[in-house]
Amino acid sequence: MDDDAGEPADTREALMRATFRALCEHGYADLSIQRIADEFEKSKSLIYYHYDDKDALLLDFLDYMHERFTTGMSEMERASPDEQLLGFYDTVSPEELDAEQSGFLVALFELRTKAPHDDAYRQSFTDMDELMKEHLARYLESGIEAGVFRDVDVDETAELLLSAFTGVMVERATTDMDDRVGVHREAFEAYVDDLRVDD
Amino acid sequence: MDDDAGEPADTREALMRATFRALCEHGYADLSIQRIADEFEKSKSLIYYHYDDKDALLLDFLDYMHERFTTGMSEMERASPDEQLLGFYDTVSPEELDAEQSGFLVALFELRTKAPHDDAYRQSFTDMDELMKEHLARYLESGIEAGVFRDVDVDETAELLLSAFTGVMVERATTDMDDRVGVHREAFEAYVDDLRVDD
Repeated sequence: MDDDAGEPADTREALMRATFRALCEHGYADLSIQRIADEFEKSKSLIYYHYDDKDALLLDFLDYMHERFTTGMSEMERASPDEQLLGFYDTVSPEELDAEQSGFLVALFELRTKAPHDDAYRQSFTDMDELMKEHLARYLESGIEAGVFRDVDVDETAELLLSAFTGVMVERATTDMDDRVGVHREAFEAYVDDLRVDD
Repeated sequence: MDDDAGEPADTREALMRATFRALCEHGYADLSIQRIADEFEKSKSLIYYHYDDKDALLLDFLDYMHERFTTGMSEMERASPDEQLLGFYDTVSPEELDAEQSGFLVALFELRTKAPHDDAYRQSFTDMDELMKEHLARYLESGIEAGVFRDVDVDETAELLLSAFTGVMVERATTDMDDRVGVHREAFEAYVDDLRVDD
């Protein structure tokens, strides 16, 4: 949705929230514009006015998630570099998930399943990964500059951490790993500990 | 397929290879028993004799992949612990993928998309993750015992590495990360280096 269209920003916000709720409840496979409209207080025709089809709406929803993620991460900017890394971790993989968060983790995974055969989805997930990697690299760089972290290769370390974050999100959506979530969190904490300059 | 059924083991092997080829070529969404039969030199009725439907066949295919993986890993048992970890890495994420390997990575990802809503698939991927984690833990333990690796927490380290492996496989199937594959491999190598006891 384009702000230039004269639609108030809160209409997009309301539609994105409706899409989020519909995705959590129905998953990607059973999602329809009608089901999104059921969660949206305004008219279904308003959705079709702005979006050609379900995929156009979902791709904008992924953009919205990127924006939300960036806003959420920028709120942590005054934390120390190690707190930023742990805060990032807890954003992508909170230890406890309520039903809505679990539903969303699965829905996000399901949107990813479009990527192998649809260039627009593939580009969106490529952009998301690059965005997450940039954040990780920034925390690592500021930690090294502040003398908190060892002088590790930032690009490599961010790449490895990104894959660990992607992996734990996918494992939580597709396997029974509830009893292993705490172990993964501790492993990440130990990894961050290990980045610290020895006292 | 049950060996007790009196079917020669090489019939299952031939059918599993046919399934692999059909998956690489068509992906999960466009896969049918007919397309698997097209790759299979024996009769389509023989497939239906052993499997109720496509999902029963694909779940046995995932078991077959687990067996193949275990066989492949046991061939590395005489290598040193650090070579075993790097060999494991190159098995799940080879630096160069030919068209068939790329197709298979996508197909394996697509099979995973069944897991959020199908208990049998979910169990199969849970088993696969646990199997991979056991292998990683074994290499770490033998490295610590041999005095090659530091005395790290084996359970945590294996969990973190498993997620990095899952993540890189998913990223390769769903994003344009070709230019970052080498960076991830180097990051993993640096991680293994860091596990080594300082000289």
